[in-house]
Amino acid sequence: MDNFTDKHGSELTETRYFTFAEMPEGLKLRNGNTFGPITVAYETYGKINSTGSNAILICHALSGNAHAAGYLSHDDPFPGWWDSYIGPGRAFDTDRYFIICSNVLGGCDGTTGPSSVNPDTGVPYGLDFPFVTILDMVNVQYHLVRHLGIEKLLAVAGGSMGGMQALKWAIAYPDMVSSVIAIATSASLSAQGIAFNEVGRQAIINDRNWNRGQYYGSWPPDAGLSLARMIGHITYLSEQHMHEKFVRRFQNPQTQGFDIKSEFEVESYLHHQGVKFVDRFDANSYLYITRAIDYFDLKKDYGSIINAFENVLANFLVVSFSSDWLYPSSRAKDIVSALRVNGKNVIYTDIETDKGHDAFLVKNPPLEKNISNFLMREFEKISV
Amino acid sequence: MDNFTDKHGSELTETRYFTFAEMPEGLKLRNGNTFGPITVAYETYGKINSTGSNAILICHALSGNAHAAGYLSHDDPFPGWWDSYIGPGRAFDTDRYFIICSNVLGGCDGTTGPSSVNPDTGVPYGLDFPFVTILDMVNVQYHLVRHLGIEKLLAVAGGSMGGMQALKWAIAYPDMVSSVIAIATSASLSAQGIAFNEVGRQAIINDRNWNRGQYYGSWPPDAGLSLARMIGHITYLSEQHMHEKFVRRFQNPQTQGFDIKSEFEVESYLHHQGVKFVDRFDANSYLYITRAIDYFDLKKDYGSIINAFENVLANFLVVSFSSDWLYPSSRAKDIVSALRVNGKNVIYTDIETDKGHDAFLVKNPPLEKNISNFLMREFEKISV
Repeated sequence: MDNFTDKHGSELTETRYFTFAEMPEGLKLRNGNTFGPITVAYETYGKINSTGSNAILICHALSGNAHAAGYLSHDDPFPGWWDSYIGPGRAFDTDRYFIICSNVLGGCDGTTGPSSVNPDTGVPYGLDFPFVTILDMVNVQYHLVRHLGIEKLLAVAGGSMGGMQALKWAIAYPDMVSSVIAIATSASLSAQGIAFNEVGRQAIINDRNWNRGQYYGSWPPDAGLSLARMIGHITYLSEQHMHEKFVRRFQNPQTQGFDIKSEFEVESYLHHQGVKFVDRFDANSYLYITRAIDYFDLKKDYGSIINAFENVLANFLVVSFSSDWLYPSSRAKDIVSALRVNGKNVIYTDIETDKGHDAFLVKNPPLEKNISNFLMREFEKISV
Repeated sequence: MDNFTDKHGSELTETRYFTFAEMPEGLKLRNGNTFGPITVAYETYGKINSTGSNAILICHALSGNAHAAGYLSHDDPFPGWWDSYIGPGRAFDTDRYFIICSNVLGGCDGTTGPSSVNPDTGVPYGLDFPFVTILDMVNVQYHLVRHLGIEKLLAVAGGSMGGMQALKWAIAYPDMVSSVIAIATSASLSAQGIAFNEVGRQAIINDRNWNRGQYYGSWPPDAGLSLARMIGHITYLSEQHMHEKFVRRFQNPQTQGFDIKSEFEVESYLHHQGVKFVDRFDANSYLYITRAIDYFDLKKDYGSIINAFENVLANFLVVSFSSDWLYPSSRAKDIVSALRVNGKNVIYTDIETDKGHDAFLVKNPPLEKNISNFLMREFEKISV
């Protein structure tokens, strides 16, 4: 084991940073404001080929970041969030492809967001951070991709909010996207999904430590953010999976069930998810990013989903999960229908699973196989 | 219009109170403690007949109370929570039946609960209030029913937690229950249901004003209780109904959607539900009653649902709603199967509706018809 391999024997990965959009030029945001400077955190895996034709951009979901694969240090206990999908011989095969993943605008893992210091004031933006949309996130990724010298992406891939970014890439930059892998996503979130996002935001805003977003340097709104995560987590799992995982077992088997403080296992699990989350996520980022998800609406922006896809040039792989009730299969089918009306190439698969919305974040051989096969065919097409 | 009729021309209703279980006798609770005194708030509608054979007990759900029907004063803007089901010619026909509805133990609308004054200390119980179960609620109702001189109930009816009480009545007092109407209920809440209750409780507990349950006389945890109600409300509606009701409309149609403070209609609606709720409900009651729901488990208590129903003598009407995902139809079918294995008389109907769990609280002609027909047949049976 040398300095370039981790305890698992593979190369260590590194988060890099690219800063652009210095003011007064800045980046024009969807809301009309000009904003900058912007630093974007990103990682890459694999090697770009001589023609630059093997680059794939991976877009993360609400709570993700740039660290999608590998280990950052020799004693890093966990790999990146999509590690089982990215690597030699994996769905995103790093022996073939050059993979890029960056943290979204508004995030809290290295890319400029509400917790970043506002250079004009010397203190974190908080709620002075501008409202950002999925298109703004995509535009930041565009500048990163061009900075890396890439003119066309073999694929843009992502699940959930990552899928929204992938769809938006194909619409906003049709010439730069050969293919799209859109997983467990939608052309707009349902009213129920907005409702769940809103109760999560209220949990943060209600926290005594939130202080209208100015909590940096003091105690952050951990209880509120933890509760928001707990609420979200219920929606990421299916009812059936929760049932199979927890039934109605008590955390302490001796519990007789006549004590208001005793806990069911499902409660301990959610509390654990909440507590883990506050160590790595910023409450204001949670507010901004969930709002970006709520406002994503291809139908509203283009008149119809069909109109939205009129000018895309990419081929599509669309995947949904049978037990996903946050981004149900019916929503994926709306995307697929709109693409087909436009005569676009689209492969659609609804994967039978009880893992709910989170099915794309856990080991999922049918999903991995679908991605792998789709990418190989797309890569062959452009290589001939 | 005289003093006995309201603006709608019907008689005014009145909430009455019955106090029993004075200490040291008290009432033996499920957790082994003896508790008292207990005051129970109740209302009655219609008249008891000469043989006392037309009495029906209605059990309310989480946020209900004793005021199920009619108006309490001449300027009362709203009738009781199940008014469209109770009255002359309605499903619970007050020309035929004598209807009783009482507020549950642990509640906050006249029956002893955490907001009641502890006679030993002179201050409200708060978290010193004992842990209560569905059986304890039923036992309090038993004492009320006997106090009213009723030896046998024509029916015990309820939806959601009210249905749990109805099932428990048939099991605990088989000789006293001729029939049960169990609507949108379950022999135990799902792990997902427990999870939703828990995030609601956390919203209250996280509120700076909760103060470990001792907030009486100072500012109550309104923000937390409101958020708990918002979370609950999402689970009471179906995704489809939310979609049809709100689509993705903004509260203010001028909203362009690039402002973190703008609201979707669905958010305003939930906020409104939350704010309305804190005016009429106690946060500690919310904690206690949701816990009672979580711990209700016929399978755990009796070894199996089949065993639970072994000795019941009642006939059953079991109703579920196709779009109810909190108490799904599959759970109702488990009850029906267990009753049929025991050779009990049971009518089951799954009503096609997009109104979700709340379908029993809104006008629902198929439900009203089912209740009406079932009660008429049951009343005929015992009248011959």
